[in-house]
Amino acid sequence: MATAKARTDVARHPERGVYDREAIYRILDEALICHVGFVHDGHPFVIPTIHARSGETLYVHGSPASRMLKELDAGVDACVTVTLLDGLVLARSVYNHSMNYRSVLVLGRARLLRDPAEKMAALEAVVEHVVPGRWDDARQPTEKELAGTSVLALPLDEASAKVRTGPPSDFEADLELPVWSGVIPVALRTGTPEGPPDPPPYVAGYSPRGN
Amino acid sequence: MATAKARTDVARHPERGVYDREAIYRILDEALICHVGFVHDGHPFVIPTIHARSGETLYVHGSPASRMLKELDAGVDACVTVTLLDGLVLARSVYNHSMNYRSVLVLGRARLLRDPAEKMAALEAVVEHVVPGRWDDARQPTEKELAGTSVLALPLDEASAKVRTGPPSDFEADLELPVWSGVIPVALRTGTPEGPPDPPPYVAGYSPRGN
Repeated sequence: MATAKARTDVARHPERGVYDREAIYRILDEALICHVGFVHDGHPFVIPTIHARSGETLYVHGSPASRMLKELDAGVDACVTVTLLDGLVLARSVYNHSMNYRSVLVLGRARLLRDPAEKMAALEAVVEHVVPGRWDDARQPTEKELAGTSVLALPLDEASAKVRTGPPSDFEADLELPVWSGVIPVALRTGTPEGPPDPPPYVAGYSPRGN
Repeated sequence: MATAKARTDVARHPERGVYDREAIYRILDEALICHVGFVHDGHPFVIPTIHARSGETLYVHGSPASRMLKELDAGVDACVTVTLLDGLVLARSVYNHSMNYRSVLVLGRARLLRDPAEKMAALEAVVEHVVPGRWDDARQPTEKELAGTSVLALPLDEASAKVRTGPPSDFEADLELPVWSGVIPVALRTGTPEGPPDPPPYVAGYSPRGN
C-alpha cells in the first residue's frame, strides 16, 4: 500500500498523501457513496453507487442491467473513489483557495460475486454501512432478489488517501491584506425522517458516521 | 443531448433519466465538487476536484503537476460526474432500499485552457461557483499564479442526469410487514465560519446552493 511510486501515490501535494491503512478504512467507512470509474471502448465512465468495506475487501453495489456491471462482470480494472468534503478554505489570494477534504482512491480488478452466501454477506455489509441496525429489521432478500442484485468486490491492497485539514495557507506577503481568511466548515447532515411516526431508534437517532 | 442510444443515456432505471438541459445545469451548479474520470495506460482513474459551469462549458480546476492534468493536457477523453445525495430510502425489503440523489454525467474531450483571459474568466467562475461574492474580495491571481494554475474545459453537449426522489417503492406484498418504511433526508450543511471575527456577509450568510 505504501510502495514507492505506486499508482495510488499522491503526486500533487504529496504532503496530503495518507497511506496508513486504518486512516484509509475510516474514510471509506464514513463515506455514504462512492464513484466507480471504468473503461468502456477506451472511454472513461464514472458512476455513483454505494459500497461497504469488510476487512480488506471493498464491496460495490450495482445491477447487472447497468452499463457499469456489463463491463465489470468479466472482471475488469476499476477505480473507486470516495470523497468527504469538510470545508471551503478561503485564503487571502484566489490562488491559495482550497477545500478541506478526505478522499480515498482504490485501484484494482473488480470481480462479480457469484456465491450467494458471499453476496448476502456483502449486501448486509452495504446496508449496515449506510444505516447501522437496518439489516435485521428489514425483510431479507429472497433467492430471486439476491440473484437479481449484483455486487462487485475489489481488494483494498492498492489504495491511498489524500487529506487536507486546517486553516488557509496564505503567502507571507498577503497576510496584511484586508481580506477575511478562514474556513467555512461543511458536512452532511440529516433532516427529520419522512414516513410513518415513531421510526425505530436507529432511524430516529441516525446521523452520518463522523458527524 | 437526448439522441437515441447516446453514451450518456440512462440504461439502468431509465425512468430516472433526465435530459432537460436546465435540469442538468442546476445539478452541476449546486454540486460543490465533481469526480473526473480518465484513462491512463488503459486503467481508469477517478479524481475529485472543483468545477464551474459557464453557459454550455464545464470548467474543471486542476494542476499541471497532477497525474490527471498530465493526461488531460494533450486533450483527452474525460468523464465528469457530480452527485448530490438527498436521502436514504428505507423500504420494507432490503431489495427495495435505495438513495434519493441527483447526478450528472458529462462525457467529452477535455482541453487545457491556454489563453490567460479565458483562464482568468474560468477561475472567476470556479471561485464564484463555490462561494459567490468571493472573487472580488480576494487578491486576484498574478500572471505567474495564473500560469501555475490549470483549468480544463469540456463542452456540455454530451450530458445526462439521473434523479431519484420520493418515498420508498415497496412491493405490494410487503406493505403489511411491520417494518418502518421512509426516507432519511441528508444534505450538505455549513457550520460556523472558522477564522477572524466578523467575516464578510457572503461568508457569514453562506449556505450551499439548493440549501
